[in-house]
Amino acid sequence: MQNWPDRRILDLFDIQLPIIQAPMAGSSTPELAMAVSDAGGLGSLPCALLSLEQMRAALELIGPGAARRLNLNFFSHAPPATDSLRSVNWRAQLSPYYLELGLDPEAVPAAVGRQPFDDAYCRMVEEYRPAVVSFHFGLPSRDLMERVKAAGPKVISSATTVAEARWLEDRGCDAVIAMGFEAGGHRGSFLAADMSRQVGTFALVPQVADAVQVPVIAAGGIADARGIVAAFALGAAAVQIGTAYLFCPEVNLPAVYREALHGAGDEDTMITNVFTGRPARGIANRLMREQGPLSLLAPAFPSAAAAVTPLKAAAEALGRDDFSNLWSGQAARLARRSMPAGQLTRLLAQQSLNKLGSV
Amino acid sequence: MQNWPDRRILDLFDIQLPIIQAPMAGSSTPELAMAVSDAGGLGSLPCALLSLEQMRAALELIGPGAARRLNLNFFSHAPPATDSLRSVNWRAQLSPYYLELGLDPEAVPAAVGRQPFDDAYCRMVEEYRPAVVSFHFGLPSRDLMERVKAAGPKVISSATTVAEARWLEDRGCDAVIAMGFEAGGHRGSFLAADMSRQVGTFALVPQVADAVQVPVIAAGGIADARGIVAAFALGAAAVQIGTAYLFCPEVNLPAVYREALHGAGDEDTMITNVFTGRPARGIANRLMREQGPLSLLAPAFPSAAAAVTPLKAAAEALGRDDFSNLWSGQAARLARRSMPAGQLTRLLAQQSLNKLGSV
Repeated sequence: MQNWPDRRILDLFDIQLPIIQAPMAGSSTPELAMAVSDAGGLGSLPCALLSLEQMRAALELIGPGAARRLNLNFFSHAPPATDSLRSVNWRAQLSPYYLELGLDPEAVPAAVGRQPFDDAYCRMVEEYRPAVVSFHFGLPSRDLMERVKAAGPKVISSATTVAEARWLEDRGCDAVIAMGFEAGGHRGSFLAADMSRQVGTFALVPQVADAVQVPVIAAGGIADARGIVAAFALGAAAVQIGTAYLFCPEVNLPAVYREALHGAGDEDTMITNVFTGRPARGIANRLMREQGPLSLLAPAFPSAAAAVTPLKAAAEALGRDDFSNLWSGQAARLARRSMPAGQLTRLLAQQSLNKLGSV
Repeated sequence: MQNWPDRRILDLFDIQLPIIQAPMAGSSTPELAMAVSDAGGLGSLPCALLSLEQMRAALELIGPGAARRLNLNFFSHAPPATDSLRSVNWRAQLSPYYLELGLDPEAVPAAVGRQPFDDAYCRMVEEYRPAVVSFHFGLPSRDLMERVKAAGPKVISSATTVAEARWLEDRGCDAVIAMGFEAGGHRGSFLAADMSRQVGTFALVPQVADAVQVPVIAAGGIADARGIVAAFALGAAAVQIGTAYLFCPEVNLPAVYREALHGAGDEDTMITNVFTGRPARGIANRLMREQGPLSLLAPAFPSAAAAVTPLKAAAEALGRDDFSNLWSGQAARLARRSMPAGQLTRLLAQQSLNKLGSV
């Protein structure tokens, strides 16, 4: 029996398999997270779209003991200043779609969720004490960061460049996720703003591994055992897998999203900001093609989402994915179809161990 | 002693080490190619910028026997229709730079080199019979393709998507280069036009390996033994390495280019079309920032280069890289500095063999 060539993440998080289920706010479920943790990996519960009440309900469903084997994930963006003009312009830009779908362009909800990590979230962390807390878009304030670490969890966050990895290490992260260009969903970028300079997983992981002392978790384009073994070869001590878990029965995606994922090939995704105001990789669809993929008009994250959400709901009710954020990485094609998440986690680990030693 | 886990490319090309030196037209030298082939890899001589006389001189310098151990590389683009209006507009767009450098905007040379593979080049292939002929930007006509194969060389070309890989296999390529987004120099794309859909090496290699029967050569972001082992893990049977060879003493780069390469970090390159009209990855500089990185005004390849070449020469004479095409992949930072190419090839192979079996 081959062993994992790097045990730093296994020891740090006290897990058996170096596979982290990516949080995937909006798509993943507590059942998915628990299945991955029960299999020996690290399941992630994304909290940024949950109210405190919803978060507590999810953690109580999981059970406070089991929740201590999870990663709780939060956003740590700076909330945008009110920018009414930009939001009004964005609504005007999208108003033809409202008319097309028979919606009232004046009825756009004013605000959307996606709260950054704050005192209230931090109290929940202090109460439930998960194994890991992960942040996206940098880190919260030094004060909050110290409170999280004092409560016990290991803290990680995503870097899309070497500079971001160094920044995270300098501010106390116990490990960094090297998030390559291939990854689905929101780019974790917080220093790097120019999407034309984003770095592929293959080039990013070894450069980050050379630049920081803490262990590196590879993310982006990893969906099978080949990717896991390659990530270790490049210097990672674990992998974070997102898209491949979207095919598991524990995830209940809208039909249009599931259909798009099942059909997605290597060149079917793009990085776009039209859904939320922040760059994220998803399967190309009408809104991305017509307004983006990167629009200068989209208001700052998360304000852009307010005007898109009603369009998404109305179009999905008609069976159309025109306005849906179909987050996906570039390797959806490599994912197994319909395997329960625990079984998938164990299979990926076993196949990786078999390959290690006979690459 | 560990063996290579996949010997298909070694057997196909009759080489000892699964390392191909990328052609890198304009930068590499016959000395570089021969050093790599002498070490057991496959050296590449790019011919697209050479006249027939220059090409013959290079092959005679190498020696006809030694030339049979090389890869001769050609472009196979469709030469653009004459588009005077577009070229005039492009010159007008760049004319402020001419004035700044004291050049006459009317003195732009009408044409530039970069001939596609044709009957005359094919006769050279038939005469010198290299081990491999590689094409960039697709393949030449069926007739020329048949002549090349009848002369003996194995034929390969670059795919930047699964669809391109299938296309190349269907038309008789003996192997395909899966060229990830990270790679330096011109994208090999010939079906895929939208650069926002280009695929990272990590996601591309396994999807190409699943899609074709012929062996896959991984390219893009590979500069050390970690990358070579990872490429094999992803399903490649060999690697093509470019940027790392630019640091070898056999390569004589302009000073500004060498300096930029030595300072290049992970996020310092972009894909641009402003130098030639085709997308290529290089280190970001003034022309890319001010006119691109992707400009709708640049005339079709290779016409855009005509108006840039005098600017490049004049600025380089002043020690400035403002108008130089500083081709580089995203992993320049991983390259060894100043090691002779033969020694580098052997070291990369030995380190890879050491890592295989203990990833």
